[in-house]
Amino acid sequence: MSDFRPLYPLVLVDTALLSVDDEGLKVLLVRRAEEPAIRKWAMPGGILRPHEDTSLEAAARRILRDKISVELPHLEEVCTASGPDRDPRGWSISVLFFALLPRDQVQAVVKSKVEAVEWANVANLGHRIAFDHEALLERAVGVLRDRVERSVLPLHLMPEHFTLTQLQRTCETVLGRPLDKSVFRRRLKRSSALIELDEFERGVQRPAQLFRATEGFSFFQG
Amino acid sequence: MSDFRPLYPLVLVDTALLSVDDEGLKVLLVRRAEEPAIRKWAMPGGILRPHEDTSLEAAARRILRDKISVELPHLEEVCTASGPDRDPRGWSISVLFFALLPRDQVQAVVKSKVEAVEWANVANLGHRIAFDHEALLERAVGVLRDRVERSVLPLHLMPEHFTLTQLQRTCETVLGRPLDKSVFRRRLKRSSALIELDEFERGVQRPAQLFRATEGFSFFQG
Repeated sequence: MSDFRPLYPLVLVDTALLSVDDEGLKVLLVRRAEEPAIRKWAMPGGILRPHEDTSLEAAARRILRDKISVELPHLEEVCTASGPDRDPRGWSISVLFFALLPRDQVQAVVKSKVEAVEWANVANLGHRIAFDHEALLERAVGVLRDRVERSVLPLHLMPEHFTLTQLQRTCETVLGRPLDKSVFRRRLKRSSALIELDEFERGVQRPAQLFRATEGFSFFQG
Repeated sequence: MSDFRPLYPLVLVDTALLSVDDEGLKVLLVRRAEEPAIRKWAMPGGILRPHEDTSLEAAARRILRDKISVELPHLEEVCTASGPDRDPRGWSISVLFFALLPRDQVQAVVKSKVEAVEWANVANLGHRIAFDHEALLERAVGVLRDRVERSVLPLHLMPEHFTLTQLQRTCETVLGRPLDKSVFRRRLKRSSALIELDEFERGVQRPAQLFRATEGFSFFQG
């Protein structure tokens, strides 16, 4: 078998799972339970299984299900990384996906086939991360910011019902800069992605109106 | 060996090589000299060689050199396609790249390890193309159009010196719609990608000023 291996590159998939909380833009890291890079932190990923997976995206979904018990309907491809030296197992390709998790589902992520999970602040990871995952994460965050700059609303990061101020704060957190309220509201007016509800916030002094995303809204096709 | 093959997916790279001429937006197709899909038309592509290639992009460059004698400094990754049924050889991944060729270099493309080459009109290919290459081509054209819509000038499609009218025509060909001249000129004024030359067109009645791209200008980082 060792004769054949070098002819077939190792094919991996990795996922940048992003969310936003009061502290900022977060990425899910797992502490690996297996070699290589055992006990190091990395984005959740693994090896494609051609007998089992129907596509690279299906492989990424299976790995998220197995490693962190997260079931996601859609992942978006970001880029590939490739070469002889990026993984100690040999010539490898990694296909990077990204997905957005609403902040009210962040707690649903639990470790399964990994040693630990942690939502790390993208601006200050706090860990050295394994392989070339820091560069890969940068690419995923770049795609997310680019979308939000281009007026695609990151509704996949919001809870089911939310106020316009909460939505503006989320956009600001993703972009890392304040947005002008009136410009932001004008942009929302043009968007068909939002539906006005007949409901208001509860338990606050001046309750704001609540909104939800249009049925079938896709951040990814935006 | 047949026991091991299914464990390792086939890894391919394909390139959408695009250019513009008076007829429209063109893509380079090759008539394949090898099975599968022998004598069918497809975008130039081939199998990654881990012993030889230092990355997927390097593999795509090697294949363009071998098959159509084109040497390109940079290719941009578009997307991957993957699955058990897209190639008769088995579970496969194809990583798609795209590149822009200036119209004055279109003639430099010659067949080498393929039966024939042809610049096909993207809007009307004239051939059924092999594998899932028609869907892949659509993705590459989408990325190109998106860039040009977002004010990235497709200077990689231009000859060394060109007039602003020629540049506008090229943008219009890529986008498939006319652009307003005054809006287009305002956009050029804001761009640092163009350098005004002290030269004018020759052999025409009312010669227009010539321009060139800024040194190191990159369509791909735009």
